[in-house]
Amino acid sequence: MTTTTVDGQASGRVSVLGLGAMGSAIARTFADRGYHTTVWNRTASRSAPLVEAGATAAATAAEAVAASPLVVVCLLDSTAVDEVLESVDAGVAGRVLVNLTSGSPAQARTRDRWVAERGGVYLDGKLMGDPPYVGTPNILIPVSGSRSAFEAHEPVLRELGGIAYHGTDPGLAAVEFLGQVAVSYEFLVGFLHTLRLMNEEGVDVAEFAGRVAGSLSAYPALLTSFGEAIKSGQYGPDLGSLNVQAALMDDLISHRESLGVEAVRMREVKDLMDLRIADGHGDQGFSSLFEVLAKRPGEVSA
Amino acid sequence: MTTTTVDGQASGRVSVLGLGAMGSAIARTFADRGYHTTVWNRTASRSAPLVEAGATAAATAAEAVAASPLVVVCLLDSTAVDEVLESVDAGVAGRVLVNLTSGSPAQARTRDRWVAERGGVYLDGKLMGDPPYVGTPNILIPVSGSRSAFEAHEPVLRELGGIAYHGTDPGLAAVEFLGQVAVSYEFLVGFLHTLRLMNEEGVDVAEFAGRVAGSLSAYPALLTSFGEAIKSGQYGPDLGSLNVQAALMDDLISHRESLGVEAVRMREVKDLMDLRIADGHGDQGFSSLFEVLAKRPGEVSA
Repeated sequence: MTTTTVDGQASGRVSVLGLGAMGSAIARTFADRGYHTTVWNRTASRSAPLVEAGATAAATAAEAVAASPLVVVCLLDSTAVDEVLESVDAGVAGRVLVNLTSGSPAQARTRDRWVAERGGVYLDGKLMGDPPYVGTPNILIPVSGSRSAFEAHEPVLRELGGIAYHGTDPGLAAVEFLGQVAVSYEFLVGFLHTLRLMNEEGVDVAEFAGRVAGSLSAYPALLTSFGEAIKSGQYGPDLGSLNVQAALMDDLISHRESLGVEAVRMREVKDLMDLRIADGHGDQGFSSLFEVLAKRPGEVSA
Repeated sequence: MTTTTVDGQASGRVSVLGLGAMGSAIARTFADRGYHTTVWNRTASRSAPLVEAGATAAATAAEAVAASPLVVVCLLDSTAVDEVLESVDAGVAGRVLVNLTSGSPAQARTRDRWVAERGGVYLDGKLMGDPPYVGTPNILIPVSGSRSAFEAHEPVLRELGGIAYHGTDPGLAAVEFLGQVAVSYEFLVGFLHTLRLMNEEGVDVAEFAGRVAGSLSAYPALLTSFGEAIKSGQYGPDLGSLNVQAALMDDLISHRESLGVEAVRMREVKDLMDLRIADGHGDQGFSSLFEVLAKRPGEVSA
């Protein structure tokens, strides 16, 4: 338990609104580590296990918000957050609200203004990991919004996991979350399509997946180099020059089409490579395709 | 240098057709390791550095094929392979040809028949790595075709890199190559689109890329578990149940569209999740989307 006093307020007090799987794990972490923890949930029975763990149950959300300078909100969805905050309304004055419920950057920015208009401070965070990892470094929690509020409460928030501050724009935690999820889904859905290709060819999909898994050790350095190349605009030949890589694309596409496996991204990669080569950059690598994406906003070619 | 004798032929003799960057690295590896290496290249001047390294230059491809029981072919493209093999024609009789030139599974299967009709044995291989890695385990070389020919010459081929035998179907090395390249390109082009999203949001793309790189340690186990789930048809909730994951997709899609960043794969993921949930499998995870891909052959929805 931290006993420091920040901004004149005892940082050992924290309230948690919402006791689903995530909210319960959050409240339990605080209670187990000696924080004076106040909890509230729409269905009051969810409070019982937390009260057994030492937390105090509040009868209303407003009562929970009144109990602590720091209020962590973790509800089902953004609509639930709106409803609960409207029930508290002016009660957010003087409070720091850290909303860890899923939601968009735009919702975070709107909610920041709503809280500020009522004299409170809003921080937005996103939970990247599962409830069992709450309280360990294996759950990542990007946070954005007021820097001074973040710094004041950072030690408390760090109890929950791998906290990273992303900037004063309250939408940036959601931006990070949506970006990380998109990278993951892009990779995984493409992987599923190629597993289907391998399955059509009679290849053991579990063995192929294991071989792909074994090849991932090269990626951290590769992704980092892509980011640096794009930031600097200095594109080396990374995976090989586009002139060489482009020669593969017709085989890749026709092979997939011959087996009825979709090739939408492979056709796009070919188009992007052709565009970049036509621009006189065939000696550069895959990362340089970033420059051509901006020429084709909104959609890939059919 | 290996001195074993296999199939009655001295395995210390090898010929290399094609002395581009890859072919030269291959020939140099053999020569440096004491093999009696015969080289040929359409432009004869490319032979000189190899001859200095101890190789023997042949005046024609046929002469090079005649010189060794094992012939490694590494030319510019599949058309070049066709031309060179036609010039050798009946000279392939009694030879094992290992073609490491890029090309499709169908080309490998056709060439296998062509060589067999002339009394030779064909193996197809693909080089997954750059020329400097030839001769190290850091270049992966899937090989397919005759098992007995592979086993007879495996020690020689292992000089070149991480050799893996994929089966008697001569197209399987190309299948592996095209599958691995597709997984990589899918991941990387999706990553580029999301870097563009981050750039539009004012996020430092190099820092974001570094954070994604840091998150990759979870993927080997995840990809392996996907392969096993698909093979067994037993789908756990991997990244979380589809019911929970699907709730994110509208935010993901609308955020990208609001910034003019393409969302084709995110719309597809949403559609696949909706289909799988409608089928009564919302408690399963992302890997179970494999089952729905087969319902939508050929293309993603627009």
